[in-house]
Amino acid sequence: MNVTNIMEDIIQKEIIKNLNQLHMSCTCEHCLSDVLALSLNELPPRYIVNQERSPYVRAIYEADRQGSINILKTISKAAKLVSDNRRCGLTRE
Amino acid sequence: MNVTNIMEDIIQKEIIKNLNQLHMSCTCEHCLSDVLALSLNELPPRYIVNQERSPYVRAIYEADRQGSINILKTISKAAKLVSDNRRCGLTRE
Repeated sequence: MNVTNIMEDIIQKEIIKNLNQLHMSCTCEHCLSDVLALSLNELPPRYIVNQERSPYVRAIYEADRQGSINILKTISKAAKLVSDNRRCGLTRE
Repeated sequence: MNVTNIMEDIIQKEIIKNLNQLHMSCTCEHCLSDVLALSLNELPPRYIVNQERSPYVRAIYEADRQGSINILKTISKAAKLVSDNRRCGLTRE
């Protein structure tokens, strides 16, 4: 069974695009993955079956102004939570 | 950034485990992927960052009786929808 949540790609790109404005205390792989996971758990998933339709569905999502504002708000909240409660410090022994 | 929605694995296993009881008119890869995508879009995602924790989080989910009943209800609804509106017929030219 071959499915993809296109929100993973959309949110990952938004995090990278807005990284400077997020003012995170750490931007290591672990912290960014935490922001991505937290954001994905807050936003409705958009699973699709075949990859060919993904640009079509992605375009609809990107054209949805309210959707992108909502994503940015969710990412900023997640970035603050991760910055205030960094877990990566635990893995750097 | 490396994240996984553990619900993908949990629901896929439930679909396979209950395949006979779902009475689907077609169980091809496309139809089963449609059932998985529809079910994942209905249920809250459970994204985690590092793979090592996944057995731990999965165990919590599998111990959650209400959660598994909810999954089965969602899968059965999706299976009926897919069976009544098969898309795979379009791809078999």
